[in-house]
Amino acid sequence: MFENKDKTEIDKLGEFGLINYLTKNIEINNLSTLKGVGDDAAVLNFEGKKTLISTDLLLDGIHFDLAYTPLKHLGYKAIQVNLSDIYAMNGTATQVTVSLGFSSKFPLEAVEELYEGMMLACKKYNVDIVGGDTTSSRQGLVISVTSIGYADEQEICYRNTANEGDLICVSGDLGGAYLGLQLLEREKQIFLENPKIQPDLEGKDYIVERQLKPEARRDIVLLLKDLKVKPTAMIDISDGLSSEVIHICVGSEKGCNLYEDKIPLDPMTYETAREFNLDPTVCALSGGEDYELLFTVAQSDYPKIQNNPDITVIGHITDKASGMNLISKSGAVHPLKAQGWNSFK
Amino acid sequence: MFENKDKTEIDKLGEFGLINYLTKNIEINNLSTLKGVGDDAAVLNFEGKKTLISTDLLLDGIHFDLAYTPLKHLGYKAIQVNLSDIYAMNGTATQVTVSLGFSSKFPLEAVEELYEGMMLACKKYNVDIVGGDTTSSRQGLVISVTSIGYADEQEICYRNTANEGDLICVSGDLGGAYLGLQLLEREKQIFLENPKIQPDLEGKDYIVERQLKPEARRDIVLLLKDLKVKPTAMIDISDGLSSEVIHICVGSEKGCNLYEDKIPLDPMTYETAREFNLDPTVCALSGGEDYELLFTVAQSDYPKIQNNPDITVIGHITDKASGMNLISKSGAVHPLKAQGWNSFK
Repeated sequence: MFENKDKTEIDKLGEFGLINYLTKNIEINNLSTLKGVGDDAAVLNFEGKKTLISTDLLLDGIHFDLAYTPLKHLGYKAIQVNLSDIYAMNGTATQVTVSLGFSSKFPLEAVEELYEGMMLACKKYNVDIVGGDTTSSRQGLVISVTSIGYADEQEICYRNTANEGDLICVSGDLGGAYLGLQLLEREKQIFLENPKIQPDLEGKDYIVERQLKPEARRDIVLLLKDLKVKPTAMIDISDGLSSEVIHICVGSEKGCNLYEDKIPLDPMTYETAREFNLDPTVCALSGGEDYELLFTVAQSDYPKIQNNPDITVIGHITDKASGMNLISKSGAVHPLKAQGWNSFK
Repeated sequence: MFENKDKTEIDKLGEFGLINYLTKNIEINNLSTLKGVGDDAAVLNFEGKKTLISTDLLLDGIHFDLAYTPLKHLGYKAIQVNLSDIYAMNGTATQVTVSLGFSSKFPLEAVEELYEGMMLACKKYNVDIVGGDTTSSRQGLVISVTSIGYADEQEICYRNTANEGDLICVSGDLGGAYLGLQLLEREKQIFLENPKIQPDLEGKDYIVERQLKPEARRDIVLLLKDLKVKPTAMIDISDGLSSEVIHICVGSEKGCNLYEDKIPLDPMTYETAREFNLDPTVCALSGGEDYELLFTVAQSDYPKIQNNPDITVIGHITDKASGMNLISKSGAVHPLKAQGWNSFK
């Protein structure tokens, strides 16, 4: 990916040199950042608010494949995936810390590209990079991001507070990120078998982008505030709809009815699933990485959301004894199963 | 290390099962923890205080060697190393998030032992584990810890606020962790050449423990509060005294005189350095991993600290033009050089 560029060897810069180099363009945009990069710890001010903290670890060969993931996209995604957790609490994300581990053979330009993607995501979402760690690894790239934000206590949405009768809603559409991944994996295999064949992703931009460059749904958090709807429970969809609905139901000690025909699918997701002989519904239920928001609202809030193109009601919360069910298009009732991604399999 | 124990395969537990298993014994002890493990983000309350955040990434083969590092010690150290950064801000550490990446071939008992060490450190320092991430890695162990704490704004000690004439102080003694590492590395080599020879660490407990099981100096932060001494600048010694003194001087735009004969060395550190034909002063200046606190105080505070066995005055801050100097035992003046650890070399 970098063969046409000059390579700068990182061992000549050293760890502090590298940190200085990477962080020199960081801007601080949040009043809550009193001190960012450059001391033992960042100093933040959340006067009158509650502090939200979330963290994710992304590992080479497990969470991403550098064969088809541009580093700038990877940096962008690493931030989005984390911010998504703060939005899922109905909070405002304000800071991140970023730790990177990579082989000393990694050219500086590669690290820089990764960092550029991170900074781009932070800028777009008005988030400050306030710290981190940079180290060599024996092999492979390691990315650890911790995101920090705030919320008024009464605004925070937990995942275990859904009530019987609440409507189950989801933002955007589902399954696209998973099918984007299937496409990228297929093209990688074809390329490995015959490097002369160029990847064919023609017309598939949307789902490829869903996989490589997801957007955390800050807009939905802001929209719900505008609509004066406070979700009764909320979670982001990282492991697949089914797994996340189960989190809400089990946490809230409730059941649910989810309607297959309501699950929002983009036409490209649907068509691509068919191409791969996959059930589009299963892709939405178990695919994961969509980073949409799944939330429950009181029925009385239905008029406020019913005509919104970004929000779909896909079911409702029932009592615990009724179980967690998926009602198929034919009306058959299936128990909902968590078949989301398990990195240990 | 685990050959006599039953092995539980992690892939059977799955990621959520593993997280539940590991976190089932977590206790919440801080009032500032409103919500810990179990949602998209932790919710913390630092009403009236400033929030402090620091993060470190520890990688197998770079920061630790599993050949001679018991996992419980490693877990303990991973927490200490991070808390040390909060104490270095003169703050109170209250929470950590812990992310782990390891091969699916790692037995559950190994992960449990690592986690036990982390929980032990947290319990001892009254810190809550409030979140994290657990994932498989292609190989090797990845540990990422983010520590969170608080301080009154006027109590926070930055590293760039030392004044001319201030005394440079250090807690405890230096160089031990580095010599502990040399010992462990030597015994590992001997063992690799002849596995029948048992490691000879007889009588070297102190320096081996300095390497494997360091203690962050919360006691010094509390002591200074008791003595009503607020350091003018503070940093923890992770990369070696020399590198940290330079951080304070460069950040504060000052110089310094450091006196070789004042640098506190434990007799075992001194003897072991000699055994290895190393200069004990160089071990203290460049060895790193001591996790002592380096701080500057106004001269007027000298009477409050002068007789304290845990604090040694090792020099003073000068103007920038005078440079950063080490005055040797013979009275010769050497410019101070940062030769701390660089993971990229």
